Amino acid sequence: MRRASFADMHCSVARALDVVGDPWTLLVMRDLFRGHHRFEEFHNSLGIARNTLTSRLNTLVAEGVVERREYQARPPRFEYHLTTKGRAFNGVVIALMKWGDEWSGFDEPPVHLIDDDTGKPIDPVLVDRRTGTPLTELRVRTVASD
Amino acid sequence: MRRASFADMHCSVARALDVVGDPWTLLVMRDLFRGHHRFEEFHNSLGIARNTLTSRLNTLVAEGVVERREYQARPPRFEYHLTTKGRAFNGVVIALMKWGDEWSGFDEPPVHLIDDDTGKPIDPVLVDRRTGTPLTELRVRTVASD
Repeated sequence: MRRASFADMHCSVARALDVVGDPWTLLVMRDLFRGHHRFEEFHNSLGIARNTLTSRLNTLVAEGVVERREYQARPPRFEYHLTTKGRAFNGVVIALMKWGDEWSGFDEPPVHLIDDDTGKPIDPVLVDRRTGTPLTELRVRTVASD
Repeated sequence: MRRASFADMHCSVARALDVVGDPWTLLVMRDLFRGHHRFEEFHNSLGIARNTLTSRLNTLVAEGVVERREYQARPPRFEYHLTTKGRAFNGVVIALMKWGDEWSGFDEPPVHLIDDDTGKPIDPVLVDRRTGTPLTELRVRTVASD
């Protein structure tokens, strides 16, 4: 069942969901964020049907979110790596993770984020770039551009 | 077609997606974030089938993300409002919006965020709470808790 396309909505959320709105796709993005690169890694991690996984990876490549890299020539074998566009999506994965950490009833977050250069834990928070104020402390209103 | 449940995965992203992973649900969350509260508002905004919308709203209420408030007694009419758990999800909607703003080929973001108290624009950025460094400037690694 192909879901509706949201590409016609003049809305960045809808456009984003048109690319990655499927829950399996979001879990593949999570796995890429966690450093998985190979078909079998996604397959084992997610328990996803192979044809479904192939379809999701092909979409991500077609959308420029992921690139395919050959890591073995005979027989040809490929890895999947986030592009710049794909790495920019990590903020969404982190936001989902944080919400799940807080509201899913876990005693402790299943996964922690670490700064790979310093080894220190990272506690992600969404702030206003200009003032540094967390968005949860602001009354945020949306205004259409036109 | 009911998709697989991700509730068994020991992962906050999967748990979050089990609640809100459906793209229609994410668009309903977007509309709630933008201040829509009534069934007809969602219906008109999304062009979603009424039974699909009813099903998504019922799930959000059952999950404690949205609460139903009667605003008219005869005949009974209800509005839908984000709970604390639902408002905490705004970070995900904002992250999706920002990614769509940057990577969907819009000349200008369709929607801007405003601080309702000061009237000033808000530019959301994900930073490490301890250091204030944007996460895009860090090499973020994930570590399982166990």
